[in-house]
Amino acid sequence: MRQVAVIGIGQTKIDEQWTLSIRQIAIQAIRAALLDAGREAVDGLFISNMMSGILDEQNNLAALVADFAGLKGVETVKVEAACGSGGAAFRAGMMAIASGELESALVVGVEKMTDRHPHEITSALATAADADYEVDMGVSFVGLNALIMRRYMHEYGWKHGDFAPFAINAHANALHNPYARLHQAITLEDFEKSAMIATPINLLDASPIGDGAAAILLVPADSLEKGDRILVAGSAAATDTIAVHDRREPLFLSAAHKTAKAVYQQAGVTSGDIDLFELHDAFTIMSALSLEACGFAERGQGLRLGLDGEILPTGRIPITTRGGLKARGHPVGATGVYQLVEVVQQLRGECGATQVPDARIGMAQNIGGSGATIVTHILNRE
Amino acid sequence: MRQVAVIGIGQTKIDEQWTLSIRQIAIQAIRAALLDAGREAVDGLFISNMMSGILDEQNNLAALVADFAGLKGVETVKVEAACGSGGAAFRAGMMAIASGELESALVVGVEKMTDRHPHEITSALATAADADYEVDMGVSFVGLNALIMRRYMHEYGWKHGDFAPFAINAHANALHNPYARLHQAITLEDFEKSAMIATPINLLDASPIGDGAAAILLVPADSLEKGDRILVAGSAAATDTIAVHDRREPLFLSAAHKTAKAVYQQAGVTSGDIDLFELHDAFTIMSALSLEACGFAERGQGLRLGLDGEILPTGRIPITTRGGLKARGHPVGATGVYQLVEVVQQLRGECGATQVPDARIGMAQNIGGSGATIVTHILNRE
Repeated sequence: MRQVAVIGIGQTKIDEQWTLSIRQIAIQAIRAALLDAGREAVDGLFISNMMSGILDEQNNLAALVADFAGLKGVETVKVEAACGSGGAAFRAGMMAIASGELESALVVGVEKMTDRHPHEITSALATAADADYEVDMGVSFVGLNALIMRRYMHEYGWKHGDFAPFAINAHANALHNPYARLHQAITLEDFEKSAMIATPINLLDASPIGDGAAAILLVPADSLEKGDRILVAGSAAATDTIAVHDRREPLFLSAAHKTAKAVYQQAGVTSGDIDLFELHDAFTIMSALSLEACGFAERGQGLRLGLDGEILPTGRIPITTRGGLKARGHPVGATGVYQLVEVVQQLRGECGATQVPDARIGMAQNIGGSGATIVTHILNRE
Repeated sequence: MRQVAVIGIGQTKIDEQWTLSIRQIAIQAIRAALLDAGREAVDGLFISNMMSGILDEQNNLAALVADFAGLKGVETVKVEAACGSGGAAFRAGMMAIASGELESALVVGVEKMTDRHPHEITSALATAADADYEVDMGVSFVGLNALIMRRYMHEYGWKHGDFAPFAINAHANALHNPYARLHQAITLEDFEKSAMIATPINLLDASPIGDGAAAILLVPADSLEKGDRILVAGSAAATDTIAVHDRREPLFLSAAHKTAKAVYQQAGVTSGDIDLFELHDAFTIMSALSLEACGFAERGQGLRLGLDGEILPTGRIPITTRGGLKARGHPVGATGVYQLVEVVQQLRGECGATQVPDARIGMAQNIGGSGATIVTHILNRE
């Protein structure tokens, strides 16, 4: 198996992009990544997207984007794993290079979702859950996360304000990320007084949706000179039951645990070696569960890392260093690619005020559904 | 790169399956393929589907199916390339094995689409075309193919009845396929008198939609004993412009040509060595264009192969040997996997009355959109 390296990244600001079509948003990220890599052509295009069929009336999106990006004739495919689509597309592109089938793979996550009625968007997001046994019972996607969060608070005795550090850290870091959706510092008071959405999840527990695209260009590592390369050191995907009610332990992200274990082994590291962790903080509860499943905290103690300041860029395990889903924003099918782009920015030392000192090993974890599909990657700076 | 082999196949009858959910349909094909292979577990599940987000309100389909198929925890992803999704998922599964990341990959195509209003289905199918520059102008998917067919007839001087052999052969072959949607022989008179849909495409030029699933299990070839293996000898994907009006030569499937050339080279064969060809006959015009682009006929002369009986199971280049999209049926996102399952049936000699004598090299070509995404495979019996 050939080792795979990252040679280019690109991203658009996450925003309400009502004057741009989905293809135009994707093309902006593609151009940025090709420019960053100093390339003009690629062998394959791997698009991640969740909802273009529903919200943009557009399937066959990969062929569409290739066409309008000027990548005529190139092999393309779209990968979908709900909010975990980005990580899954990165893994598909990685395997295409590793197998020897392609010499370059451009992974592009894109979502355009804000210019529809909120009811349509909520319904589209709910397609990540079990349509027959969850959604038809009236549970929305935020509702499912609220059930998990309430159970967690009950089980381990935490109060709502204990989740605040995750949101405060994300908002603080996003201030320094020009591509972030929200540029607004928040306080514990803001967090506690924020409008309730689905008890106990309030507005500042939840990540904002957005329109945006991120791109990352992969090539065989042996095509680059050694030294200063960014390598894909670990890659794994796994699933749990799609419905939360079918899980023996709804407070344990088994697929996060399984994939973290796999990537640690592949990269020859332990959780203690990870310099930063771009986790999937769609809701504050998910930050806690992800940290616990990946070995950074005991079960029920993930909040402690926030309360102790260990998740800050200068802490033991910096998370959401560019704002995370919470403040960088969550353009659903694109999010996993944003996470990986941000890990690359950290490994390159491009993060200014939120730079993790001497970042060498970064991890990204992308979650589809309420823990159903999880894709975890480790990138290393040589 | 590791060579990849097929060790199991499964499929459901294509029909209106209103009493089954999409997960239940997929599971039937999965069980059949695992039983056929004598296995119970797999490393990865690659689902192909085009429209479940729109018609079944279900995304994250791969995680859902893995869960309910009893493949708990397994890596999954959904691949979408419109009607070319099946071939694309097969290629993704193949690359996962070839890369060394997985030791087994189950590729499952599934679509459930008949129990909705025809207007909804037509709209959902149109998402394969360019939403902004084709569909918003009022062109349906059959309308696009009608434009191509009319131009072909004008350019090369064929009359409508000359397309009949493609439909007649497909219907005749489907009589012997228990999984086929239509079991009804047709005559030239039937063909010419059939109801018009979009001039010049009538009902018997067009393939019927349906609900169905097909599955195929891949493993590394070196895990099997030599002799009597079915190997993936060639695999390629390419694109053309998504919109028909953007093509310099709208009567030439450039991505079919490109991928056929690639798979011939990979397999070390020429078009003359292909024993059977499961092509993408969504409309009769597509059979002609596919045969021409892959080197079986000169441009504009694909119909000659039908008129001369060369496409019959005993002819020079047998096509749609199990009924093709035309009569086996076209459950859109599943079709590409059906084609590959049928090639395997031919290579195994399981096709009874429509068996191609001593079939050793089979090709399958899956098309997404009106030629935008094309995935071509060659399978060899050792």
